[in-house]
Amino acid sequence: MANSKFEYVRNFEQPDPLLPNTWIVVRIDGRAFTKMCAKYEFQKPNDRRALDLMNVAAMAVVTDIPEIIIAYGVSDEYSFVLHKSCDLFERRASKLVSTIVSTFTANYVFSWPTCFLDTPLSFPLPTFDGRAVCYPSVQNLRDYLSWRQVDCHINNLYNTTFWSLVQLGGLDNKDAERTLAGTLAADKNEILFSRFHINYNNEPEIYKKGSVIFRDYELVDPGSHSVAAEIDDLAEPVTQSKTQTEKDKKRRAKARVVVQHLDIIKDDFWDRRPWILSNKPGKAPKET
Amino acid sequence: MANSKFEYVRNFEQPDPLLPNTWIVVRIDGRAFTKMCAKYEFQKPNDRRALDLMNVAAMAVVTDIPEIIIAYGVSDEYSFVLHKSCDLFERRASKLVSTIVSTFTANYVFSWPTCFLDTPLSFPLPTFDGRAVCYPSVQNLRDYLSWRQVDCHINNLYNTTFWSLVQLGGLDNKDAERTLAGTLAADKNEILFSRFHINYNNEPEIYKKGSVIFRDYELVDPGSHSVAAEIDDLAEPVTQSKTQTEKDKKRRAKARVVVQHLDIIKDDFWDRRPWILSNKPGKAPKET
Amino acid sequence: MANSKFEYVRNFEQPDPLLPNTWIVVRIDGRAFTKMCAKYEFQKPNDRRALDLMNVAAMAVVTDIPEIIIAYGVSDEYSFVLHKSCDLFERRASKLVSTIVSTFTANYVFSWPTCFLDTPLSFPLPTFDGRAVCYPSVQNLRDYLSWRQVDCHINNLYNTTFWSLVQLGGLDNKDAERTLAGTLAADKNEILFSRFHINYNNEPEIYKKGSVIFRDYELVDPGSHSVAAEIDDLAEPVTQSKTQTEKDKKRRAKARVVVQHLDIIKDDFWDRRPWILSNKPGKAPKET
Amino acid sequence: MANSKFEYVRNFEQPDPLLPNTWIVVRIDGRAFTKMCAKYEFQKPNDRRALDLMNVAAMAVVTDIPEIIIAYGVSDEYSFVLHKSCDLFERRASKLVSTIVSTFTANYVFSWPTCFLDTPLSFPLPTFDGRAVCYPSVQNLRDYLSWRQVDCHINNLYNTTFWSLVQLGGLDNKDAERTLAGTLAADKNEILFSRFHINYNNEPEIYKKGSVIFRDYELVDPGSHSVAAEIDDLAEPVTQSKTQTEKDKKRRAKARVVVQHLDIIKDDFWDRRPWILSNKPGKAPKET
Repeated sequence: MANSKFEYVRNFEQPDPLLPNTWIVVRIDGRAFTKMCAKYEFQKPNDRRALDLMNVAAMAVVTDIPEIIIAYGVSDEYSFVLHKSCDLFERRASKLVSTIVSTFTANYVFSWPTCFLDTPLSFPLPTFDGRAVCYPSVQNLRDYLSWRQVDCHINNLYNTTFWSLVQLGGLDNKDAERTLAGTLAADKNEILFSRFHINYNNEPEIYKKGSVIFRDYELVDPGSHSVAAEIDDLAEPVTQSKTQTEKDKKRRAKARVVVQHLDIIKDDFWDRRPWILSNKPGKAPKET
Repeated sequence: MANSKFEYVRNFEQPDPLLPNTWIVVRIDGRAFTKMCAKYEFQKPNDRRALDLMNVAAMAVVTDIPEIIIAYGVSDEYSFVLHKSCDLFERRASKLVSTIVSTFTANYVFSWPTCFLDTPLSFPLPTFDGRAVCYPSVQNLRDYLSWRQVDCHINNLYNTTFWSLVQLGGLDNKDAERTLAGTLAADKNEILFSRFHINYNNEPEIYKKGSVIFRDYELVDPGSHSVAAEIDDLAEPVTQSKTQTEKDKKRRAKARVVVQHLDIIKDDFWDRRPWILSNKPGKAPKET
Repeated sequence: MANSKFEYVRNFEQPDPLLPNTWIVVRIDGRAFTKMCAKYEFQKPNDRRALDLMNVAAMAVVTDIPEIIIAYGVSDEYSFVLHKSCDLFERRASKLVSTIVSTFTANYVFSWPTCFLDTPLSFPLPTFDGRAVCYPSVQNLRDYLSWRQVDCHINNLYNTTFWSLVQLGGLDNKDAERTLAGTLAADKNEILFSRFHINYNNEPEIYKKGSVIFRDYELVDPGSHSVAAEIDDLAEPVTQSKTQTEKDKKRRAKARVVVQHLDIIKDDFWDRRPWILSNKPGKAPKET
Repeated sequence: MANSKFEYVRNFEQPDPLLPNTWIVVRIDGRAFTKMCAKYEFQKPNDRRALDLMNVAAMAVVTDIPEIIIAYGVSDEYSFVLHKSCDLFERRASKLVSTIVSTFTANYVFSWPTCFLDTPLSFPLPTFDGRAVCYPSVQNLRDYLSWRQVDCHINNLYNTTFWSLVQLGGLDNKDAERTLAGTLAADKNEILFSRFHINYNNEPEIYKKGSVIFRDYELVDPGSHSVAAEIDDLAEPVTQSKTQTEKDKKRRAKARVVVQHLDIIKDDFWDRRPWILSNKPGKAPKET
């Protein structure tokens, strides 16, 4: 039985390549995580097990897909950044998004028991959706990541104060909401300190800064150069010998993928880790 | 700290709505499943456990997303069809694809132990990619599904003969390949029967036909009407009272989601199940 | 000097094919035509010369591009419909839109002097923008065209009454606007008749109905069949012998392209001209 | 008569915004210009009247649309570049392309008699198609323009030699083609010089370099700065006072739009005219 009669249906597949020479961000978000939080009794304002599980899953994604140069996570969302020179899956949007979402989900479900020791998973299972966005310049990309990290800060300060008012101050949710309406950051810091003796600065970095995942090499002395300008200048295609490409691949494969909780808004993070934007592996860090 | 300085990055998000009034097919495929087969020693030509797991995961997807009217699976791929009137996620392609891929993956990983009793899952985990395709007419949609089912048949006949030659006939892979080069369906049937006393018609339906998932209602007497013509005629928006919509929703939620192994190429399947294309729930089947 | 160093820039060209088996409407609109009207002193509420010029230009487009099955124009806009089986320019949106806009503009500017005998064109010249929209079913397409024709009617009734109040009734624009605020169609008809002895039904058809352009064949006896259902059923690709295709092409080339002012909302127009939706040339009309 | 019943058809209009912060190139091409050349007996290898007309039309486009920072034309094609910060028509692809194509066509047809004094235009009229492409970095954009200018050079050298062989050397087209098969640039220069005493370097710049259109201000002393790096660094949105925007607009409107025939591959052109990439109007040139 020949299949040719029906093959015309392939013509309905529409191409969806992302614009070359742009930074691709694939952001995934937990679906219906408010329900999830209630069902599994996530701790407020932050559930350390849940964040650890997000990080475990994201580490697996970054390890599996070396084209990802950095990932940033907060709450139930994670952003994965593919280098602007990346040609994985010919940059097809649906293929990139679905692969990252699927890898993340598989690891999230699989590693659940290692993070939630006494809380077995049950139906309906946790799931994530995702989308791809292109950023043309280094500045746009960094502004995107800054946007997410500022959001992390704003939400965490609010949530920390809100739940202090509720859990320590005995307010109900509505009263806590009313108390915080119209307050600035300074006001919230003040509430935390004066009422609950909590110094927000001493809160765990993972809550205040979110989580940053990248390949780790020896830090570089900053100040001597501007990575951003160099990177934007690079137009495709960078010609590089095959030997060099192979070498880079091996070094990248050997590099340790780490999760840290750092400021990625200021230049310092980027200047000391030029390999992230250049996509050229750095020196292996000294063993300690 | 206001976040407004960075918010402009949202403008880089591009809209990706799928054309209204078209049938949306989201097809997912196992990534690197050849490696998977080797790693977990899937049986050849068909591993019943693997197919059962695909069906378990797909059943969960169809149950979770009532907008899916039918799903068809073969080997490591599954096609999910959303009704042309579906407005889920405002028909955004990446949202639809990522949600379906994620739900499928979560269930595949979670239910693995129930299908592979003695074979624990290990890294790297099984993952899937996906894409959405729009089909304007009922004929296009049915031709798409026919294309997949014919493909199932062609591959299964080939694989059944190939692995018979290898496993029962003692040929190595190359000799089996050579034996089959240029053969027609009739030739393969003949090889199976004359050399191995296998009547291909008696092979399990799940291998020959693949798997079809849908909501089950009482079968309808066919012949009296053409569903396709009626369906294509329907333009958006169908106005329906809210009460009716709510009623439909409840009946749909109560309906049993079933997996069967039937011919979906001929009219009979569709004529007896008009609810699939009309999206109007049928009568609950008589209890037996 | 080899050009290969720069050729990579071609990779930035993104594909933009329109979904197969859907009706393509390319609608063009005059840019800044309010200014145009003032500059060339177009008559109110309708300038016959301006409408004639629109029709001349649209006739040229339909004649040049036989894939256009029908066009509908009102005021400074025109909609061109390509048959759902059309494969012109591989259905690339920008190519289709730009070609139609360019052909229309060229003819509009070139034929200006034949319609505006005493009013020479001057800078800035009249221009048009355009866009393509896909409609999956015959019903959607007809609803689109009905939408435009109803719009024509609504606007023309309003404008006819408005300008009667101003030109015949001596009201200024604001008072005329106020007089019409909240009025229904019947009210406007009444104003026209009682104040100005104008029977709206006797207004020229070109103003009330807009302009319809199509290839003319012998009218068909309606009632015996439903074109829409047959047409929607047709899936791609319709196989047709080359001889037949060539014959069709010749008959189509010989057919007279006409502009008429008819109701295209009711079935009658379509039932008597089945060639428009079927794309199969009809019989040459009897000479008279 | 309310129109609401049909208004749903608007939902089929798909959004088509181009990625922000990228350089938009709209390239238009003459349709069927080989036929045009034959019909109007364009001179070979270059018809000065035809090129002048292309430039007249392109000048009108650049003058009408101040968001165009530079345009480059060769043969029957023209590329119009919109600044990466441009928000005209919310960057909708079809609107940008159709407007530019329409404005170009209108002016081409209207100004035909001023360039082709004794050759009246006739049906079918000259038309153009167009498309938009986005380039993320200055380097990509300049590489695009270099690609077109190198193409101009390669074609013009070939055509000049080819038509010399035919018109001066008495070869027929096939023999001329054969003579040039496999020749390098140096060979063609040699043929021109030794056989026909033509020094290619002395050919008119308009043929060798094509045509560049831009707003003219006082040239800047190059070397002190790199425009490209500064420009790529700029992320959206650049905040600028309204007064400044208004001032810029006025200066831009006053600037002379010029057509010149220069090398745009080397840095010099860009370094001396920083206003092209920065989109900040320069100083008015001294009167001479």
